[in-house]
Amino acid sequence: MQHADDAPVLRHDADGVATLTLNRPERFNILSEEMLEALTDALASLADDPSLRCVVIAARGRAFCAGHDLRQMRARPDEAYYRDLFSRCGALMQAIVALPVPVIARVQGLATAAGCQLVASCDLAVAARSARFAVSGIEVGLFCSTPAVALSRDIGRKRALEMLFTGEFIDADQARDWGLVNRVADDARLDEVLASLTATLCAKSAVALRTGKAMFQRQQEMPLSRAYDYAGEMMATNMMAEDVDEGIAAFLAKRRPQWRHR
Amino acid sequence: MQHADDAPVLRHDADGVATLTLNRPERFNILSEEMLEALTDALASLADDPSLRCVVIAARGRAFCAGHDLRQMRARPDEAYYRDLFSRCGALMQAIVALPVPVIARVQGLATAAGCQLVASCDLAVAARSARFAVSGIEVGLFCSTPAVALSRDIGRKRALEMLFTGEFIDADQARDWGLVNRVADDARLDEVLASLTATLCAKSAVALRTGKAMFQRQQEMPLSRAYDYAGEMMATNMMAEDVDEGIAAFLAKRRPQWRHR
Amino acid sequence: MQHADDAPVLRHDADGVATLTLNRPERFNILSEEMLEALTDALASLADDPSLRCVVIAARGRAFCAGHDLRQMRARPDEAYYRDLFSRCGALMQAIVALPVPVIARVQGLATAAGCQLVASCDLAVAARSARFAVSGIEVGLFCSTPAVALSRDIGRKRALEMLFTGEFIDADQARDWGLVNRVADDARLDEVLASLTATLCAKSAVALRTGKAMFQRQQEMPLSRAYDYAGEMMATNMMAEDVDEGIAAFLAKRRPQWRHR
Repeated sequence: MQHADDAPVLRHDADGVATLTLNRPERFNILSEEMLEALTDALASLADDPSLRCVVIAARGRAFCAGHDLRQMRARPDEAYYRDLFSRCGALMQAIVALPVPVIARVQGLATAAGCQLVASCDLAVAARSARFAVSGIEVGLFCSTPAVALSRDIGRKRALEMLFTGEFIDADQARDWGLVNRVADDARLDEVLASLTATLCAKSAVALRTGKAMFQRQQEMPLSRAYDYAGEMMATNMMAEDVDEGIAAFLAKRRPQWRHR
Repeated sequence: MQHADDAPVLRHDADGVATLTLNRPERFNILSEEMLEALTDALASLADDPSLRCVVIAARGRAFCAGHDLRQMRARPDEAYYRDLFSRCGALMQAIVALPVPVIARVQGLATAAGCQLVASCDLAVAARSARFAVSGIEVGLFCSTPAVALSRDIGRKRALEMLFTGEFIDADQARDWGLVNRVADDARLDEVLASLTATLCAKSAVALRTGKAMFQRQQEMPLSRAYDYAGEMMATNMMAEDVDEGIAAFLAKRRPQWRHR
Repeated sequence: MQHADDAPVLRHDADGVATLTLNRPERFNILSEEMLEALTDALASLADDPSLRCVVIAARGRAFCAGHDLRQMRARPDEAYYRDLFSRCGALMQAIVALPVPVIARVQGLATAAGCQLVASCDLAVAARSARFAVSGIEVGLFCSTPAVALSRDIGRKRALEMLFTGEFIDADQARDWGLVNRVADDARLDEVLASLTATLCAKSAVALRTGKAMFQRQQEMPLSRAYDYAGEMMATNMMAEDVDEGIAAFLAKRRPQWRHR
C-alpha cells in the first residue's frame, strides 16, 4: 500500500478509529484492479491492530463508489479472469464482515453496483441526505449477482429484487427506511453524525466490540438452537474479561467504567 | 389450457410480457382444482419461451384470489388427497420462483390465504390502493401453513405471525411498508404503474434478467461464503454474454445499448 | 413455583389466556437465578395444558425486564457457571418458541439486554408508548450475544448491529417500525389493546393456533422446497381436524363457527 497522497486508498488513524478513504474521486472510486488490491491490503493491515476500535470506509469526491471498472473488465474478455476478479471482490467484502471490529460506511454521492455492495457489507452505514444507491449492473446487461448477496441480507426480498431488476436509484431516506443505512445526515453534518457514532463505539470495551463482531454473522447463519449454543459460549468467554468485572463494578457503583480493553 | 374467453386462466402476450389473468371473478378466482391446473400449465408453458422478458399474474373482478376452494376441499375429507393438493399448490408457488424471468403480481381487491401466498411468491408486486391482504385460513380453523412459507420470506417474523394468528387484513400501504408489495397505485392508475414497471424490465437484457432470476433465491439460502462463490460464478458467466460487451460499450460511449438478448 | 403474592412469577388464568407476570418490580424484574427458574417452571407448567389458547408475559413496575442479575453473576466468576447460566437462559427463550400456543409480550417501561431478548423471543408483542428497548450489555463490557440471536431474527441486520454495538435505546414506535413489537398503545390503554389481541386469538380454533405455532419457526429454518413439503404435511393434518369441517361449514353458511378445539 502506498502512503503518498495519491495512493488509491488513504489511511488515517485517530483515537482508535481507522479511516480508509477511497481516493480516486475523478474515477468515482471504482473498484479497479488497483483499488481492489489497495483496499484488500488496507483491510488486511487492520486485522491485527489491537488498538483498533472501529473502521470507517469513506471516499473522496462526488461518488462513494461506482462499482467495478467496466473498461478494465471489457479489456480482458476471459471467463477465468472474471471468476478470479469476482472471487477477489467477494473476498474483500467478506474481509469487512470478518474484521475484528465494527466497520462503518460513510456514504456521500453515488453508491452503485459493487459500491452499493460495499455499503451493504459494512456493519453500519451513515449517509449524506443526497446519497443515492443502486445496483445498476443490469443497465449494462450484467446482473449484480455478488452485490445481491450482501444487499439481500440487509433489506427485504422484494425490495432487493426491485433494485436488482430495475437498476433504479433509491435515496438516503429510502435506504434508511429499508435498513441499508442506519443514519442519514444533512450533507454538511455528515462528519458530525459519523463522529458521534464512532465516539459511541470507541467508548465501549474493545473486548465487547470484538466479541460481537465475531459472533454476529456466524450466529445468523445457524438454526436457532445451535445459534444459542454458540452465543452462550461466546458470552461466557466474554464474561471472563477484566473489562466485564470493571464494567459491572462501575455499573453497580453508578460510575463510568475504566476499560483496559482485555 | 383452454384459450377461449371462459378459460380459468387467460394468457395475453405483448412486447415480451406474458400476462396470466385469473378468470373466475364470480368465484373470487379461488384455486380450485381447475384453476390450480390451469395456472400450473400456464406457467409451465412459459418456462421455455425465449422471447419472454417478464410475467404478470393478474386477476379479473373484485378479488385477486381468495385462496383454496373450501367447498371442493370439504367434499373430499381424505388426508392423502390434502397432501397431494398442498403439494401441487406448493409446486405452483415454487414454479413462480423457478420461472426464468421476473414475475409480477398485479393485485386488486382481496388477496387472501393462498391468494396472499401467490403475491408473496412473486418477485415483485404492484397493488391498487384498495387492495387488502390476509392469511385468513385461521378463520375456518386451518392455519395458513403453506402461505406462511412464502409470507415469512417477504416480511418480518412478528408481522408474519400477527397476520397468521389473527387472520386480520392489512391494506396496500401497510403491505408496501412491510415489504409484501413494491408499489401502490391509485386504483385508476394501477395498469399505468404496472406498465411503467414492465417497460423498465423489458428495456433490460434478457441475459441479465434471467441470470438474476436464477441466482437470487438460491443464494439467499446459502451461507455467506458459499453464496459469494456461487454468485461470482454466475456473474463471470454473465460477463461472457454478447449483451454485456454491447452494454459496456454503450455505457462508455454514452449511448443506449442495443440488446441482442444473448 | 410459589403461588403466594411474593412469588417471582405470578400466574393468572382467564378464558384460555395464561398471564405470567414477572414480580420483582423493585429489582426491575431481572433474570436472577430465582427468576430464571420460576419463569422456566411456569412455562413448563403451561406446555401440557389443553385449555390454553395463548400466553402473555407481563411484568410489574417501571421495567418489563432489565436483563441478567449482574451482581449475582459477578459473585461467581467461573466460566463453567456462566456457560450453564446462558445455556439455561437460552433454553428459557427457546421454551417460549416451543410452547404450543402463541406467546405475547406485554411491555411497559424498560426492556434491556435479556429483557429485550424476552420480547424478541415472543411471537407477538404489545408495547406501551413509553416503553424503551436496548441491548445494553455493551455498557458493562459484555456484548449481548444471546440477545442478538433473538433480536437479529426479528429486525434487520444493520438495525440489530446498531442496537448491539451502541447499546442505545429505541422507543416503542421505532420498535414497531422495525418489527420488534406489533402494536403500540397509549400507556393507559395498554391492557385494552392487549385484551383485544388476546380476544382475537381466543376466538380461533386451538387446533389452528397450535398447528401454526409448531410449524412456523421450523419452516423458517428450512430451504424453500423442504419448507413447502413440511408445511404441506402440517396443513393436510390440520385439514382432518373436526374444527376445520365446522369452520368451512360455518364459512359456507355465513354463520359463526362453534369450535370444539380438536
